[in-house]
Amino acid sequence: MTKRVLLTGATGFIGRQAVASLLDRGYEVHAVTTRAEPPAGTGASWHRADLLDPSAPRAVVEQTEPTHLLHLAWYAEPGAFWTSEANVRWLEASLRLLRAFAAIRGRRAVVAGTSAEYDWSVAGVCREGVTPVAPRTLYGQCKAALHAVTERFYAAPKMPALAWGRVFFLYGPHEHPDRLVSSVARALLQGHPAPCSHGRQVRDFLYSVDVARAFVALLDSDVKGAVNIGSGTPTMIAEVVQLVAEATGRADLLQLGAIPVRADEPAELVANVKRLRDEIGFVPHFTLEEGILATVDWWRNSSGGAARFVSG
Amino acid sequence: MTKRVLLTGATGFIGRQAVASLLDRGYEVHAVTTRAEPPAGTGASWHRADLLDPSAPRAVVEQTEPTHLLHLAWYAEPGAFWTSEANVRWLEASLRLLRAFAAIRGRRAVVAGTSAEYDWSVAGVCREGVTPVAPRTLYGQCKAALHAVTERFYAAPKMPALAWGRVFFLYGPHEHPDRLVSSVARALLQGHPAPCSHGRQVRDFLYSVDVARAFVALLDSDVKGAVNIGSGTPTMIAEVVQLVAEATGRADLLQLGAIPVRADEPAELVANVKRLRDEIGFVPHFTLEEGILATVDWWRNSSGGAARFVSG
Repeated sequence: MTKRVLLTGATGFIGRQAVASLLDRGYEVHAVTTRAEPPAGTGASWHRADLLDPSAPRAVVEQTEPTHLLHLAWYAEPGAFWTSEANVRWLEASLRLLRAFAAIRGRRAVVAGTSAEYDWSVAGVCREGVTPVAPRTLYGQCKAALHAVTERFYAAPKMPALAWGRVFFLYGPHEHPDRLVSSVARALLQGHPAPCSHGRQVRDFLYSVDVARAFVALLDSDVKGAVNIGSGTPTMIAEVVQLVAEATGRADLLQLGAIPVRADEPAELVANVKRLRDEIGFVPHFTLEEGILATVDWWRNSSGGAARFVSG
Repeated sequence: MTKRVLLTGATGFIGRQAVASLLDRGYEVHAVTTRAEPPAGTGASWHRADLLDPSAPRAVVEQTEPTHLLHLAWYAEPGAFWTSEANVRWLEASLRLLRAFAAIRGRRAVVAGTSAEYDWSVAGVCREGVTPVAPRTLYGQCKAALHAVTERFYAAPKMPALAWGRVFFLYGPHEHPDRLVSSVARALLQGHPAPCSHGRQVRDFLYSVDVARAFVALLDSDVKGAVNIGSGTPTMIAEVVQLVAEATGRADLLQLGAIPVRADEPAELVANVKRLRDEIGFVPHFTLEEGILATVDWWRNSSGGAARFVSG
């Protein structure tokens, strides 16, 4: 049976890594981008659309008639994304997209959720269906609302199946230059100091290529509902930035403890990956060391950092 | 200071009763309707718009520049409204409307929520902030999502204040003819039998005129957050339909116990009205007996019932 996937956010941080995985699994890939000139030689069919335009979701769905939908597009400007009104606009656009996909009788949709949906005051190791959903940010709230509404909407007969991948922390090539790993790597590679917090916060990091592989594995499975997308390995932020520092050869410029930790930052935020591992059968390809090395190499070869970065 | 309110759903079951209350409290009323010919002699300025048209919310907000927003419009077809996709479309439209209202620096918004946001498996007497929000229907879920997202969105600096009125059960003139009180009144007035369930379910009924008055009182207050809109009086459904039967003079045609109760119907669903009574200072004008008498009179004078019914 033909598998034809509509991929949104296809030139974004995760989406760009998803194209090859989708092709590997036999999908005909229809990729959406706002860019005038889509990437060449990807093996995907590119469709230019701004999903925030109210008529775009339906138009692109009717044009491509996908059996599958992998919806990764969202507003992702570092810092600003937590509270921006753009979250509300993306919620509206996503609802329109998921309605359009239902209207053409799509088979299966997978949407990018976030660990920020969980109640961070009790976070620790987060488990789907057990850790309470109680987002404290507009970003987390809009994602949680999209999930709750779509799950109920798609529960009716003849609707597409829905799975919801909750992303934890990630890093890799092409990341926005102002994120944790990218900003530290860039500073050190340029010989600048990199002030960090004490770094004892425990997080769950997964290499962007593995995040994309996990989403595609989830899409290609029969699993429904929320699934954490993470490594399952509790890792201190200090450990991550120290690996970055070693890979750059400038560990002397890493300044742990130079910045205060925000009072409301959770001490620990880690994915329970039982569903991802046992029900989807996903295991990461890359260790943290390998992923960090590859990422630092990418920044080293991208002539100064920001130059090669192109927003999704 | 001028109070200029944009009223949506202004020809609907509650909205039509809200116009006079708003004028009483000194509001300049801008009322939205999809009708080609708005009601005459209401004292409101009427604006024709279909809020489901993506460009309409912003257009009508920019045209009227309201300081206040009372958003009552939603899909309300009896039976169908619980699960209809129209709920998702109204969620999108409402988010667009609330974004537009924020963009013009509106002062205060009040939106119609529902008792169906509460977890009906633990319902009983529902209290804001205490009874869990866990809707089991798409209608309840879309309303709950709109509330959660807007509350977070408006929590930012310089945003409008938000209050959220959770409506329980209501009845009155102009109700859709297929609802509980309207359908029983119409059947008995026409000399037809009215089969009902045993009627021992306990609910909270408020006359539509009082519901509208409560919304306007909430709008005119400084209270934020969720506020139950109900009578606070636990009332068996049997009691309500018996009052209807007495008012029609055809109690002989009322058939209690003729229809099974749905297995998942909550035994009791009543509003705790402490916030509404003590913080807003609202008390109903109409007793249940008075409201039912007025409603049956209205149906008696509306030549057969459905003829005079005009959808909102």
